[in-house]
Amino acid sequence: MRYELYYWPSIQGRGEFVRLALEEAGADYLDVARLPKQGVPALMQFLGGKSQGRIPFAPPFLKAGKLVIAQTANILLWLAPRHGLVPKSEAARLWAHQLQLTIADWLVEAHDAHHPIGGAFYYEDQKPESKRRAAHFTAERMPKFLGYFERVLARERSGWLLGGTFSYPDLSLSQMIAGLRYAFPRAMERLEPKYPRSIALHERVTARSRIAAYLASKRRIPFNQQGIFRHYPELDV
Amino acid sequence: MRYELYYWPSIQGRGEFVRLALEEAGADYLDVARLPKQGVPALMQFLGGKSQGRIPFAPPFLKAGKLVIAQTANILLWLAPRHGLVPKSEAARLWAHQLQLTIADWLVEAHDAHHPIGGAFYYEDQKPESKRRAAHFTAERMPKFLGYFERVLARERSGWLLGGTFSYPDLSLSQMIAGLRYAFPRAMERLEPKYPRSIALHERVTARSRIAAYLASKRRIPFNQQGIFRHYPELDV
Repeated sequence: MRYELYYWPSIQGRGEFVRLALEEAGADYLDVARLPKQGVPALMQFLGGKSQGRIPFAPPFLKAGKLVIAQTANILLWLAPRHGLVPKSEAARLWAHQLQLTIADWLVEAHDAHHPIGGAFYYEDQKPESKRRAAHFTAERMPKFLGYFERVLARERSGWLLGGTFSYPDLSLSQMIAGLRYAFPRAMERLEPKYPRSIALHERVTARSRIAAYLASKRRIPFNQQGIFRHYPELDV
Repeated sequence: MRYELYYWPSIQGRGEFVRLALEEAGADYLDVARLPKQGVPALMQFLGGKSQGRIPFAPPFLKAGKLVIAQTANILLWLAPRHGLVPKSEAARLWAHQLQLTIADWLVEAHDAHHPIGGAFYYEDQKPESKRRAAHFTAERMPKFLGYFERVLARERSGWLLGGTFSYPDLSLSQMIAGLRYAFPRAMERLEPKYPRSIALHERVTARSRIAAYLASKRRIPFNQQGIFRHYPELDV
């Protein structure tokens, strides 16, 4: 089946967690809003909701035959077992989803570090507030989340979050580390020595053949100042 | 099976979405941290993570036999099909979960209206920032989310989100409306006439016999100023 992914064409954002899973799976997919003839209007048409019954609130969403699935973690919940990206047992799938939802929470906080007042205002209109929130994020929240995943990894000899086998939350944790390195290089330089298992996981994920090929390709959108992870030096002190 | 719910004992918070599902199901459950002999230490012991392999990042979590499931939406994903709170088809379950995750996103924004800089600071230490964020939340975000759910309801003659049958996202949307009425009574008074289907759903949910009995019981913790929904008149203008 050829999947259709709908997400903003110029940022990694939430869509990147789905792109990474599709790439690791070697799945056949179109990144619809990045196609010259389709673009953002194709995405907006779906959100307009005249064409189908189950309207997404926001991108990303994945079209798979008649199914249209939104919410990043929900897409991965559906996609992963179809491509061997999660073990088959119900307990393992719930645990993988739980980890993914925890990463989703972390991602919101990474975004809100530069947009604490709301996405409708420019960063420039919320700089003092961002400074306070980013200071708290780098000093307290990043260590809390990194420490959590490090503890999870410490229970598993395999070096993967689920133990024994690689799974999609490994891709997502690796993406978080890449994003935090882009946004907060100084904070990460200070923190990384404390979380060697998470950093090792990131290295192993990015060395996987399909992921390495993807990251080196034009399909990978570079980090930039419109995405969820943004580098403002004044927020990384 | 007797479930064990672990959540903070003095607030509704995220745990309330699970409590409502357990109550509607007539399930046998213990609200462990509210038991006199167990309390918060029983909850903290789990987070300490010495007793089991799959550590939750935060409450709520549900113990069901050997399973320990965290993340509110993940708990409901697992619980609902076991108690007839969601239709059986995969497409319906994904759609219900997608709606629940959208409510979870909304809930974070309701919280951040009074804590835009972070949960580690008192509200009193982020009042000017809260004023800006709450103004944006009530003027833009509440209508956006309410409008989304109203559109979903407009596609279904049944008055329930999934169409045809009552399901757990109906409980969650009802709880959002109750919480927003507590936190932002003036904003809600202004907005409610625009979203009659959502308000009617709330009335129908709270009139269901088990839910009505629960809401009238001592098991229902009243809204208060420590929870996710808080009423600060200066944020509701």
